[in-house]
Amino acid sequence: MSATPLVRTPEPPYYAVIFSSRRTAGDRGYAEMSARMVDLGSRYEGFLGIESARGADGVGITVSYWRDEAALLAWKRDEAHRHAQRAGRDTWYEEYEVRVARVERAYGSSGTSHAPPPKS
Amino acid sequence: MSATPLVRTPEPPYYAVIFSSRRTAGDRGYAEMSARMVDLGSRYEGFLGIESARGADGVGITVSYWRDEAALLAWKRDEAHRHAQRAGRDTWYEEYEVRVARVERAYGSSGTSHAPPPKS
Repeated sequence: MSATPLVRTPEPPYYAVIFSSRRTAGDRGYAEMSARMVDLGSRYEGFLGIESARGADGVGITVSYWRDEAALLAWKRDEAHRHAQRAGRDTWYEEYEVRVARVERAYGSSGTSHAPPPKS
Repeated sequence: MSATPLVRTPEPPYYAVIFSSRRTAGDRGYAEMSARMVDLGSRYEGFLGIESARGADGVGITVSYWRDEAALLAWKRDEAHRHAQRAGRDTWYEEYEVRVARVERAYGSSGTSHAPPPKS
């Protein structure tokens, strides 16, 4: 998946799906599927954005952000998404791990971050 | 930061700190600081592991995993870590975002993942 700019997320709480993976060698349709999944997932209500990075060693992390659990579960049940997940297990990933997490605090360099000022 | 293998985390709940960033050009001491921070952070009690990926476009995602909030807050207050954070804001990152999240579910290709079987 091509990397995207950092996402401007709203004030927490919201949800993050952390997808960590190690790719097999060769593309084998991966880039096309990946772009299609981003396009499809981003049309779901409650989708807040996606960030992605993959290094030359094949290790990648993609984090998608969701307004609430209902939104990410709807996307999890999407038929085309389930098909891509099966292909991923069989073809594209040596190993992967999915973690569903509730974002409680956020801060950063953007003006839209949300956190109390750090205590010194 | 060099990428690491995927982390075998324990059964949720636990915490994830999602650090997304876009690097400035040039190393300027970044690789050395980064390796030092991983070494230092991993000595903290409650540290569960770290995953990291950065693409050729400079966008990177690093996720560190922690047993509980107390563990990640102890690391957040570490003096050398705070110094590196200041240097990161000034020198290494065009932009960054930190999100603190509670992992509620996890599943994947490893035998140590934790989730109910997907409902069809």
